[in-house]
Amino acid sequence: MISQTSEYALRAVICLAQHPGELHTATKIAKLTKVPDPYLSKVLLILAKHEVVISKKGLHGGYGLAHSPDKITLWTIINAVDPIKHIKSCPLKLESHGTHLCRLHKRVNDSINMIEELFKTSTVTMILDQPTKSIPLCESKK
Amino acid sequence: MISQTSEYALRAVICLAQHPGELHTATKIAKLTKVPDPYLSKVLLILAKHEVVISKKGLHGGYGLAHSPDKITLWTIINAVDPIKHIKSCPLKLESHGTHLCRLHKRVNDSINMIEELFKTSTVTMILDQPTKSIPLCESKK
Repeated sequence: MISQTSEYALRAVICLAQHPGELHTATKIAKLTKVPDPYLSKVLLILAKHEVVISKKGLHGGYGLAHSPDKITLWTIINAVDPIKHIKSCPLKLESHGTHLCRLHKRVNDSINMIEELFKTSTVTMILDQPTKSIPLCESKK
Repeated sequence: MISQTSEYALRAVICLAQHPGELHTATKIAKLTKVPDPYLSKVLLILAKHEVVISKKGLHGGYGLAHSPDKITLWTIINAVDPIKHIKSCPLKLESHGTHLCRLHKRVNDSINMIEELFKTSTVTMILDQPTKSIPLCESKK
């Protein structure tokens, strides 16, 4: 339901959070997240533009998190690369509706509000600190 | 967040429910729902294929609802034209994850479950019977 771009951005940020204090090249992150290199490079540039990650140029440069992982929510990441837009006015542009949504569009917007609430209350730390059998992006050790 | 196709399908079904017992041509529904005619024709064909609407050919033919509007949920409509897919196995195809989702993909799938629940419990009748200032698809009378 979230876009491919959002999925890749989430993977990239989770990957960086798994290696705190280190800078990684786009190529390395692409490999770890199993995302095509050129696609991930673009995603990282957008994340840097929105100050979710930092980018350092040069020989030992690369990408790192711009904030502590407990300050980065899934909503921030998704919103940076492919914002989920609320319905603020009638999609049919009916003059008399304006910003007074009908029940149909109100219900669709309700679903967006629910997603926003869930992702806004989900930090990167929460994703990494609640262990399951499967660790994000990593094959489990045998 | 739902696709353009889903939005148009929702409008089409709501439109038919607003005119119970009548058959309407694709062209008329397209006009009432403010959707491009060729696009809506395709959407109606998919809805007919999934038995959400009925299609009757001939001079007085057209489209109508296949079921009572209290039996049609928004989820049924969306699922017919552009299904929202659950994450059932690791999108990275990590062998050791398989169907045991990591916390990241579990959280994304949680959002899909929430949407499913909301739309499954929203019938077409509910959309039409809970009046607001704005009536779906209609300009308010002055």
